[in-house]
Amino acid sequence: MPIRILVTGGTFDKEYNELKGTLAFNRTHVENMLQRGRCHLGLTVEVLMMMDSLEMTDADRARIVQACRHCDEQRVVITHGTDTMVETAQAIAAGVPNKTVLLTGAMVPYAFGSSDGLFNLGSALSFVQVLPPGVYVAMNGRYFPWNHVRKNRELGIFEGGVEG
Amino acid sequence: MPIRILVTGGTFDKEYNELKGTLAFNRTHVENMLQRGRCHLGLTVEVLMMMDSLEMTDADRARIVQACRHCDEQRVVITHGTDTMVETAQAIAAGVPNKTVLLTGAMVPYAFGSSDGLFNLGSALSFVQVLPPGVYVAMNGRYFPWNHVRKNRELGIFEGGVEG
Amino acid sequence: MPIRILVTGGTFDKEYNELKGTLAFNRTHVENMLQRGRCHLGLTVEVLMMMDSLEMTDADRARIVQACRHCDEQRVVITHGTDTMVETAQAIAAGVPNKTVLLTGAMVPYAFGSSDGLFNLGSALSFVQVLPPGVYVAMNGRYFPWNHVRKNRELGIFEGGVEG
Amino acid sequence: MPIRILVTGGTFDKEYNELKGTLAFNRTHVENMLQRGRCHLGLTVEVLMMMDSLEMTDADRARIVQACRHCDEQRVVITHGTDTMVETAQAIAAGVPNKTVLLTGAMVPYAFGSSDGLFNLGSALSFVQVLPPGVYVAMNGRYFPWNHVRKNRELGIFEGGVEG
Repeated sequence: MPIRILVTGGTFDKEYNELKGTLAFNRTHVENMLQRGRCHLGLTVEVLMMMDSLEMTDADRARIVQACRHCDEQRVVITHGTDTMVETAQAIAAGVPNKTVLLTGAMVPYAFGSSDGLFNLGSALSFVQVLPPGVYVAMNGRYFPWNHVRKNRELGIFEGGVEG
Repeated sequence: MPIRILVTGGTFDKEYNELKGTLAFNRTHVENMLQRGRCHLGLTVEVLMMMDSLEMTDADRARIVQACRHCDEQRVVITHGTDTMVETAQAIAAGVPNKTVLLTGAMVPYAFGSSDGLFNLGSALSFVQVLPPGVYVAMNGRYFPWNHVRKNRELGIFEGGVEG
Repeated sequence: MPIRILVTGGTFDKEYNELKGTLAFNRTHVENMLQRGRCHLGLTVEVLMMMDSLEMTDADRARIVQACRHCDEQRVVITHGTDTMVETAQAIAAGVPNKTVLLTGAMVPYAFGSSDGLFNLGSALSFVQVLPPGVYVAMNGRYFPWNHVRKNRELGIFEGGVEG
Repeated sequence: MPIRILVTGGTFDKEYNELKGTLAFNRTHVENMLQRGRCHLGLTVEVLMMMDSLEMTDADRARIVQACRHCDEQRVVITHGTDTMVETAQAIAAGVPNKTVLLTGAMVPYAFGSSDGLFNLGSALSFVQVLPPGVYVAMNGRYFPWNHVRKNRELGIFEGGVEG
C-alpha cells in the first residue's frame, strides 16, 4: 500500500545550533526515524518545506494542498508543526477530496532525547493505512477528524469534541 | 475507548545489568514509553510476566489467553518477545473470540538508545483502535493477521503472505 | 579530596520547554551527570544561579568570586556558559588566590542526546584534582590557564596561546 | 601533547546484536565519543583488539604491553574491560617504564543511553596529560596507581587503598 510522507518541518525536525545557541532547521530526520522504526512500508518521502508552522503563509498551505492532491498515493502523512496543524488540516479538507490524509507532529524535537516524535510517526503511519478517506490529526496516540480537534496550548495536547 | 495493555516482557523491556554485564529484566518500561508519547488514551497496563519469549511455556500462553479473554476491554495490545510472537498470536486466536488483539515488540531494548519500541507501540495502539475483531501482529509499521505472518530471522523483520 | 562544584547555568543546563517551544532553564542536571558518571569523589554541589552567561552582570560575577573564595574546599569546578567563561575566569583570578579553579561548560545541552557535557565534566573534575593553584578553563579535553585562552565562536572551540 | 589511545574492547564498545538478541563487539565507538566531546587533543587511535577482558590471555596482555612500549607517544590511554583492568595495569607497570599510562572503561556500553563511558574517557584523557610517568586506572572520576586499586564487583566501582 503506497504512502506519501510530506515533510513541512515543525518541532519534529528542529535541531540545536551549537554555534548560535538557538533552535533551527537543518535536514529532516524522517528517514532516520523510519530506519529506527525498521519500517517496511512502501513510502515516498518528499520535503516540501522546513518551517515553524507559526510562520506558514496561505501560499505555503496552498503548496501542501497541491502536493496532497497531485501525488499518486491515496494515503498521505504530513509532518507539521503543532501550532497551526488544525488550520492546515482545514485547508486540505477543502482542497483534497477522496484521500486519507493524516497530519502529525511532535512536542519535543526528535534530535533531543525525550521526543514523542517516533511514537507519533508510528501512530500516523498506522492510522493512514486503515482509516477511510478524510483529513485527520494523529497526536497523543489518538486520531481526530480535522473539524473535531483543537490544540490545548496550556497542556500541550490535542483534544477532540470541537464542532467545526 | 478503553484499551488494555498486557506486558509479557520481550526485548522491549530488557535492560543491561551493569554488575553482571548481561541482559536482564527488571521493571517494565511501558509506562515511561506512554508518558514519552504523551499518550492520552484510556489505558490499563497489566504486567503478566517479564520473560524472553523463547522461554515461554504452554502454561504461560494459557495465562495470556485468559487475561485477554477475561479483561473488560474489547481492545488489547500485548508487548511480547518477537521470537515466538506468532505462536502466542495463534493461541489467542484459538481462545479469544470477538476482541481486537494486537501483539507488538521490539528488535532493540527500549532502554538502549536506538530502539524501535516507541515506534511499534505507537503503531500497535493505533491499529488496535480501528481494526475489526481479530488477532494481529504489529511490527515494522505494518499489521498482519495472525495466520499470515512469520518472523524472518535473517533480516529481523516480519513478513506477510503466509497462509495459516 | 573535597571538591566544590558551583553551578551557574549555561548551555550545560538548558532544556527544551515544550509548551513554549523555547530553550529555558529549569533545574540543574549536574547531579544526574555525576550519577551517570558513577562519580565517587567527595563533592558538594552548590547552585549559585541558572543563567545564560551572556546575561551575567558584574554583580553575578562578584557572587561567583565570593563563593570560590569563601568555600572550605581548595578545589572548585564551575559550570558556566561558554560565551563569557573567560571573563568570569579573569574575575576569579583577580579575587581568589591559592585555589585550583576549573571552569567548564558545554556546546550542546546535556538534556539533548548529543551533548559534550559529560565529557567536559569528567575532564574538569580530573584536572581540578591534579593542577596546581590557579584558574583554568577545561574544554575540548584540554585545560587552559585563564590568561591564555579564548573562545573561537566560528568553530565553537576554545583555543590557547593568547597572552592575557 | 601527542597521546595514543589503545582500544581493547570491554563494555565501552559492546553493542546489542538485534538479530541474535545478544551483546557483541562490532566496531569501536571511541572516535564517535571523541567527536561528541569536541575533543581537540593530538590523538592517534589504534584498535589492538575488541574483546571482553575476562577472555584476555597472557598473549593479549603482551600485545598491549608491546603497543605501549613501542608507540612514539609518552602518554597512553587504554580502553579496557573493567573485570581484569587491574591485571593488565600490572603487566604494563612491569613492562613499560617512563610513560604515563591510564586505563579506563565503562560499566554500561556507550551505545546504550545511560553510559558512563564519555565521562570516563574525558577523565582519562585529562589525567594522562598531567600525571607523572606511571600506570594508573581512571574510573569514577578518580585515578588510582595500578598497585593501589581493586574493582569492587558488588558495587561496580573501583576502590583504592590496596597495597600491591
